[in-house]
Amino acid sequence: MSEKLEKFKEILGEVSDLGHASAVLGWDQQVNMPPGGAEGRGQQLATLGKLAQEKFTSDEMGRLLEDLQNEYPDAETDEGAMIRVAARNYDKAKRVPSSFVAEQAVISSKALEAWVEAKSKSDFSIFRPHLEKNLEMIKKYISFFPPADHPYDTLLEDYEPGMKTAEVREIFGNLRPKQVALIKAISEARQVEDDFLKETFNEKKVWSFSEKIIGKFGYDFKRGRQDKAPHPFQTTFSVNDVRITNRYEKDAPLATLFSAMHECGHALYELGVSPAYERSSLEGGTSLAVHESQSRMWENLVGRSLPFWEHFFPELQKTFPKQLDGMSANTFYKAVNKVEPSLIRVNADEATYNLHIMLRLEIEIGMVDGSIEVKDLPEIWNAKMQDYLGIVPPNDALGVLQDIHWSYGAIGYFSTYALGNIVSAQLWEKINEDIKDLDEQTRKGQFAELREWLRAKIHTHGHKYDPQDLVQKVTGSKIDSAAYVRYLTKKYSEIYGL
Amino acid sequence: MSEKLEKFKEILGEVSDLGHASAVLGWDQQVNMPPGGAEGRGQQLATLGKLAQEKFTSDEMGRLLEDLQNEYPDAETDEGAMIRVAARNYDKAKRVPSSFVAEQAVISSKALEAWVEAKSKSDFSIFRPHLEKNLEMIKKYISFFPPADHPYDTLLEDYEPGMKTAEVREIFGNLRPKQVALIKAISEARQVEDDFLKETFNEKKVWSFSEKIIGKFGYDFKRGRQDKAPHPFQTTFSVNDVRITNRYEKDAPLATLFSAMHECGHALYELGVSPAYERSSLEGGTSLAVHESQSRMWENLVGRSLPFWEHFFPELQKTFPKQLDGMSANTFYKAVNKVEPSLIRVNADEATYNLHIMLRLEIEIGMVDGSIEVKDLPEIWNAKMQDYLGIVPPNDALGVLQDIHWSYGAIGYFSTYALGNIVSAQLWEKINEDIKDLDEQTRKGQFAELREWLRAKIHTHGHKYDPQDLVQKVTGSKIDSAAYVRYLTKKYSEIYGL
Repeated sequence: MSEKLEKFKEILGEVSDLGHASAVLGWDQQVNMPPGGAEGRGQQLATLGKLAQEKFTSDEMGRLLEDLQNEYPDAETDEGAMIRVAARNYDKAKRVPSSFVAEQAVISSKALEAWVEAKSKSDFSIFRPHLEKNLEMIKKYISFFPPADHPYDTLLEDYEPGMKTAEVREIFGNLRPKQVALIKAISEARQVEDDFLKETFNEKKVWSFSEKIIGKFGYDFKRGRQDKAPHPFQTTFSVNDVRITNRYEKDAPLATLFSAMHECGHALYELGVSPAYERSSLEGGTSLAVHESQSRMWENLVGRSLPFWEHFFPELQKTFPKQLDGMSANTFYKAVNKVEPSLIRVNADEATYNLHIMLRLEIEIGMVDGSIEVKDLPEIWNAKMQDYLGIVPPNDALGVLQDIHWSYGAIGYFSTYALGNIVSAQLWEKINEDIKDLDEQTRKGQFAELREWLRAKIHTHGHKYDPQDLVQKVTGSKIDSAAYVRYLTKKYSEIYGL
Repeated sequence: MSEKLEKFKEILGEVSDLGHASAVLGWDQQVNMPPGGAEGRGQQLATLGKLAQEKFTSDEMGRLLEDLQNEYPDAETDEGAMIRVAARNYDKAKRVPSSFVAEQAVISSKALEAWVEAKSKSDFSIFRPHLEKNLEMIKKYISFFPPADHPYDTLLEDYEPGMKTAEVREIFGNLRPKQVALIKAISEARQVEDDFLKETFNEKKVWSFSEKIIGKFGYDFKRGRQDKAPHPFQTTFSVNDVRITNRYEKDAPLATLFSAMHECGHALYELGVSPAYERSSLEGGTSLAVHESQSRMWENLVGRSLPFWEHFFPELQKTFPKQLDGMSANTFYKAVNKVEPSLIRVNADEATYNLHIMLRLEIEIGMVDGSIEVKDLPEIWNAKMQDYLGIVPPNDALGVLQDIHWSYGAIGYFSTYALGNIVSAQLWEKINEDIKDLDEQTRKGQFAELREWLRAKIHTHGHKYDPQDLVQKVTGSKIDSAAYVRYLTKKYSEIYGL
C-alpha cells in the first residue's frame, strides 16, 4: 500500500472513529441519559463534529485526494471507490462554509422550538416565519453548489447520491395514479376486522417476542442489542456493534413487533457491510432509500406476509391466548394489513404510506423552486390530502405540522422513504427468482438464505455503489415502481377480494 | 477576558469534551456493549485519546501557557489556578514522548494478558517477565522527569500532586504499629456474629434499597444513574451527569449497599464541583486520595456507623423480615463491622484494609529504587502478610497476583486508597466540630448538612488546590493519621469491648 493511501486511510479511520463516538453519545442521550446531561452532551457532540469536520476537510486530505484520484482511477476497485466517495464528500464539505453550518444550526434549533410550540397549539402561523428562514438557508445551501437540472437535485444528492429530481418525479408519477386507484378499490371493499389489536398485550412478553423474531431473522445479540427509547432507530458503533431501539405503545401494543423487524432490517444491512470497509468512506449503507428498502422488506414483505404469520402466529397465540383466542393466522395477517386512509404518515399502512410521501415531495420541490410559498402550505396540504387520500385534517397539528423534518431544516429527505418501499419490491421479485421456495422457508421460520442473499448482493458493498447503480446491478433495472405496484395489487386483491 | 485566555479555555474545553466522550464510551463498554463491539471501541478510545493529547500538547497551547502564566500569576484566583494546573499537566505530557506511550500501551496490554493467565493458574513465573518489563518502562518514565528526592515521587505526583514519598512513608510509619496492635487486640476479643449476612437477599430489593440510601444522601437521579457492571465505579460525563455502577454478588448480597454508598461518595464530589470549572483544568476531584476520602466517608464513617443503622435498619428489616427477624440495629451494625484478617484486599474490613496497602507501597518503593527484585516478590509478599496480618496466602493467586494494577503498569496508585481513609477521618473530626448534632441528624436519616459542608469545603474547589493544601486549608493540618487511629480505636473498642 502506498504511503499516501495509508495516510488517507488513517485520516478516514479517525474521522470514522469520531463519527462512531458521536453515535454512542447520541444513543446514550436517547436511551440512558439523565436530564441533567443535556447541556454537556450538546457540547461534546459539537466538539466531536467540529473535529471530524476539521480533520476531513484539512488541506492534507485535499492534497491526498488529488494525488490518489490519479493513482487509483478505477472506481470498481475498493481503493478507487473509497477515494471516489471520499472525494465527493470532501468536495461537498469544502463548499459549505463552517460559518454557514453554525448559522444554520442556530436558526434550525430555534425553528425546532417554534415547531414544538406550533404543533402543540396547532397554529401554523407560529412556525411559518421559522420555516421561511429554514427555506432561505436551504436556498443559500444550494447556491454553494454548481447549478443542477433542478435546484432540488442538490438536496436529494445528500441522501441519494446520483439521484435526480426528474427521476424521482417520474417514478412517483407512474406510481401515484395506480396507488390512488388501488386505495379507492379497497375503500369500496369490505373492511377487515382488527379491533383485537387494541387489546392489552403485556409489554414484557411483546418485547421478548420481538427479540425472538429478530433473533430468527439473524440479528446477533453478541453484535447488537435492543433498548427502549422514545423513538425506534438503528445506530452503528462499528460493524460488530449495531444497535436498535424500540418502544411500546399502549394504543398499538403489537407495533413493537413491526418496529423491531424494521430496525432489524436496517441493522442487518450495517452488520453485513464488508469488514474491509470498516473505518473508511465505504462503511455503512449506501443511501437512505436502499437502507429503507432493507427495513421495509423485513417489516412488510417478510413480516406482514401470510407465510410469516403461518409460522409465528401459533406461538403468538400461545403467548397471548386470551387476546387471540380461536383466531386463525389468516385473520391475524389481514388485521395487520388493514388499509385505511389516515392523517398521520408514521401510522399509515403500506398501501397509503407512499401517498403521504408524494404529497411532501411535491411541496418540497415547490418550496425550493419557488412555485409554492410557505404561507400557503396549510391550504395546499389539505387540498392534496383530499386528492390523494380523500380525507382532510381537521387542524394543522394533524396536517402540515405533523412531521419534525422541516423544522430542523431537513428538506429532501422524505422521498427516500417511498423510494425504499419501491426498491424493496424490486429486490423481492429478484429474490423470488433466485430462491424458489422462499415462501416455504418463511413458513418454516427459516431466513438464512434470504439474509445471505441480501448480504451478498446489497449489504457487503457498503457505500461502494451509488443507489441507482446498485439497484441496476442487482435487479437489471434502475429504480422503478412497477414491481411495487404488482406487489401491492396482488397482496391487497387477496386480502380485500378485489 | 483576554483573547488569549479565551482561546486557552476553548482548547481546554475541547480536550475536556474528548475526555468526557471517552468516559461515555468506557462506561458503555462496561455496562452495555455487546462482545462484538470490543475491537471498534478500542480504536475509538485510542483515537479520542490521541486527539485530546495532540490538542493539549500543541505548540499553540505551549505559547498560550507561557504568556498566561505571566498575565495571571496569582494561583488563588480561578484563572491563575486553571493556568497553573494546566501548565503542570502540559509539562508532564510534553516530557513523555508519544512513542513511549505507544510502546508502553503494547507492553502493558501483553502484561495484562499474562497476568490473567498467571492468576488463573496461580503461577507467578508466567507474570514475572512481564512485570519486569513494566517496571523497566516505569523506570524509563521516571527518567523523563527531573530527579526528585526519591524516584517514586515522580509516580506519586501523577496521582497525588505535590505529595512526596517521604511524607507518605511518615504517615504510614506512624499508623502501622498502632493498626497492627489494634488488630491483635481484636483478634483476642470475642468475635461478632455475621452469618446471616450470607443468606439470600433478593437482588431487586437490595438494589432498590441501595438507591433509597443514596437518594437520601442526596444523589440526584436527574443528574446521574446507577447501572449494573462487573465492577463498581463512578464516572463523570459532565457536572450534571455523574454516574455510578454497582454489582450484586450472591456470596455477599448486602455488599451492594456499601458499594452504592462508596460510589455515591465519589459521585457527590464530582457533582459538587463548581460549575464555573466545567470544561477546564479545574473540573473534577483534585486527587485520588481526596476522592477516596469522600467515598470512604459515605461508605464507612456514615454507612457503617451505629446512628446510620439506627435509622435504616428498621426499614431493612421490614424489607427482609425472614433474614433479619428479631435482630437489633446494634447486632447488624456489629456484623457489618466485623474485623478478620483476610487475604484479599478488596474484601478487607476497615481495620485491616490499610495494612494491605502498606505492604504494597513498600514493595512498590522497593521495586522502583531497586532494593526489591521482581523475582523475590512472592516471598516478600508472604513474609509481610505474616508480619502485618498474621496470615500467609496458600498460593500466589490469593497473594501477590491478586490485584490487576501492576499488570497494566499502574505503580504509585495503591497508597491513595489508604491516604483516602486517613483523610476521611481528619475531615470527620472537623465536621463533628462544625456540626454538633451530626449523629442525631444521621439517626434521623438527614444528610443535607453534612453533604453541604463537604460541598462547600471540598467539592466546590475541584482541582484548584493540591491535596495537601486542601486538607491543610480545611482541617488546619496536613495529612496525618492521628485522627484515623482515634476513629478506629474508638469504634472497635466499642464493638469488641477492648
